[in-house]
Amino acid sequence: MHDLIAADLRIDIDRLSRRLADLAAIGAIEGTEGCARLALTDEDKTGRDLVLTWMRDLGLDISIDGIGNVIAAMPSEHAVAPVMCGSHIDTVRTGGRYDGNLGVLAGLEVIETVLASGIKLDHPLAVGFFTDEEGARFQPDMLGSLVYVGGMALEEALDIEGIDGPRVGEELERIGYAGSAPLPGLVPHTFVELHIEQGPILEVENTTIGVVTGVQGISWQEVTVTGQSNHAGTTPMNLRRDPGYVAASCVAFVRELSLELGHPQVGTVGRLELSPNLVNVVPASATFTVDIRNMDESILLQAEARFRTFAEELAAAEGCTISFETLARFEPVVFNQRVVDVIESVAEAQGHSNRRIPSGAGHDAQMFARVCPTAMIFTPSQNGLSHNPAEYTSPADLKAGANVLLHTMLRLAQGNQN
Amino acid sequence: MHDLIAADLRIDIDRLSRRLADLAAIGAIEGTEGCARLALTDEDKTGRDLVLTWMRDLGLDISIDGIGNVIAAMPSEHAVAPVMCGSHIDTVRTGGRYDGNLGVLAGLEVIETVLASGIKLDHPLAVGFFTDEEGARFQPDMLGSLVYVGGMALEEALDIEGIDGPRVGEELERIGYAGSAPLPGLVPHTFVELHIEQGPILEVENTTIGVVTGVQGISWQEVTVTGQSNHAGTTPMNLRRDPGYVAASCVAFVRELSLELGHPQVGTVGRLELSPNLVNVVPASATFTVDIRNMDESILLQAEARFRTFAEELAAAEGCTISFETLARFEPVVFNQRVVDVIESVAEAQGHSNRRIPSGAGHDAQMFARVCPTAMIFTPSQNGLSHNPAEYTSPADLKAGANVLLHTMLRLAQGNQN
Repeated sequence: MHDLIAADLRIDIDRLSRRLADLAAIGAIEGTEGCARLALTDEDKTGRDLVLTWMRDLGLDISIDGIGNVIAAMPSEHAVAPVMCGSHIDTVRTGGRYDGNLGVLAGLEVIETVLASGIKLDHPLAVGFFTDEEGARFQPDMLGSLVYVGGMALEEALDIEGIDGPRVGEELERIGYAGSAPLPGLVPHTFVELHIEQGPILEVENTTIGVVTGVQGISWQEVTVTGQSNHAGTTPMNLRRDPGYVAASCVAFVRELSLELGHPQVGTVGRLELSPNLVNVVPASATFTVDIRNMDESILLQAEARFRTFAEELAAAEGCTISFETLARFEPVVFNQRVVDVIESVAEAQGHSNRRIPSGAGHDAQMFARVCPTAMIFTPSQNGLSHNPAEYTSPADLKAGANVLLHTMLRLAQGNQN
Repeated sequence: MHDLIAADLRIDIDRLSRRLADLAAIGAIEGTEGCARLALTDEDKTGRDLVLTWMRDLGLDISIDGIGNVIAAMPSEHAVAPVMCGSHIDTVRTGGRYDGNLGVLAGLEVIETVLASGIKLDHPLAVGFFTDEEGARFQPDMLGSLVYVGGMALEEALDIEGIDGPRVGEELERIGYAGSAPLPGLVPHTFVELHIEQGPILEVENTTIGVVTGVQGISWQEVTVTGQSNHAGTTPMNLRRDPGYVAASCVAFVRELSLELGHPQVGTVGRLELSPNLVNVVPASATFTVDIRNMDESILLQAEARFRTFAEELAAAEGCTISFETLARFEPVVFNQRVVDVIESVAEAQGHSNRRIPSGAGHDAQMFARVCPTAMIFTPSQNGLSHNPAEYTSPADLKAGANVLLHTMLRLAQGNQN
């Protein structure tokens, strides 16, 4: 390839924005910029059909596998693994137009740009969209990419029941996306996902590009504290066994612990319920969840252990019983250092402010990290909003993100440097 | 009266226990010792009819007023105000057999015992039961005694709508308890109410008789904290505006403040709700109630002020907005010193362990305290349980309580000492 020509190459932001708008019109939430296309619904089918049309218009080789993942690759004379990008086009019920869609449509834009330039690459480029990333209709989330990399058997995935009844397999057949491409899927040469941050850090720090170093490990626990329900007026403070007090103190401790362990440690109590939940009754029981995340598994383990010790000791001191149930537990995913370096170097070369950042949310890329060198690029989310029709990233930021994706993929596709 | 004979006089605990059991059989909650007789329901009517039968069997003068309060007095040749006792026979949906019922049936037992003894008194004795003390069907609670003492106009009370639809007036007509005795009612000479403690103090301190000095003032507030809902994984701790954290810290502060202010100060957060209440979402808002009680109005005011300052400052520091709504506010009621002294002296004379104690819950007696010298007698509640079918007071304690009621009323009815 001719380095000089390639260095000047840029995506067409107007074309990308138009496609984002066209896709967002499907399942549009009236009166907002957002859309609702739950996985494998009629809206998802219509969205898939539209993206597939664009892929076909570019003359790409398209494969659809048994879980409905769609991969579109540049035609290639040699049987070499593609440099792949991609994300998802399903949304939550109150979705925005950028989450997932950006990574797919920017990938398409990158390929269209490269095809038009006539540049020859050692590895073809490919873009994919993966089924049910959101997990809003079928659990677990990131289902399509999980099956793609062999993390779950296809039969098991097809048998998953949706929140509205039908199973994955039935819905894939119904919308015509039960394909025949082999699973686990073709292992890419490398994988890069462009995504909105879904958090406030880039905006707050006035930074254009997030160079994503990995995905935080996640620990979800449900904690149940049982005490003695009593009359709020007649039970002296020293005779109480109040599970609400224990739960509340745990909420405060989660905050203190997270601050002490320092960024990027986060800890959240998002759900808390008292029973019987009456103004004049000392609760009989309290149930709450604790969401703890860190990029460092050893610190995550430490946070879990310290929370548990605090909660157990406080419950015992209050004369309450306490139990812990693990709702979810994922170790941190560390992205490939070389791919991270390439992204950072490209962002620098293009003059974009950038910072290394962990992802607090899960993404399809973390599944690909199991099988090939992988990393992600973040663009800013206005007010940190996501899973919200008000989700917004400026055209300038979209353009910067897509151009970093373009040149990251170009560099990765230069065989001699890989 | 002949003091010697009177000092030996005792109630019949078997007869009292039988009547408690007979009344508890009406609206009995299957498989428990408890009963459900919500005010002015068919079960309440059947219970009223039974107690009225017993009152009539003793040849008492019975009056029923416009709010359905029933007063049964010893026939008297002179127009002197009675020494009155009483309580209520309505229950909560998960009621026990002692709450309220004890005060009414022990009063009946006292009168039967005195009538059988042939003792002549300067003031007749009377026993009443008052409509809708629990407030479980019609708000506010203590409705019948409130109207009796002139604290609410009858018309206003009759117009109150129940949680299940019908109004007080309609239901009184329907069950045949819309009487014609004048309201406000006859002012008694003195009023004494025997009641279970509904708290654990007497049992924990192995004490038989509680000499009730008054009813704690009550402050109920509903607090709403609004922050910024965000992704639990992608929002750094230092950028959060978490109303759940503010609410939880308030719960812990209510505990610390109550302990610092010391007994009998109590503070309770019995209700707490987060929205949207999801494991991986920093809450958008938190709503919780604060129940603060004290016998001393100045300390109660101080507790309210300190809580509000803490909550406002913390909410501001967290970048949250906060609002406070008063759900209920009653000043403390201080019972009549002379009646309190008589109760204590009778308990001592009968050899019962006793202690002065404030009531943490509201009672009909606090309404009578507005119009005549009033106090209360508490008997122990096993495990402090009340408003619970498992509510229990031993026959020995019931007997002690009723005998203290008997001799308290006898002393109060001796005109020369009053």
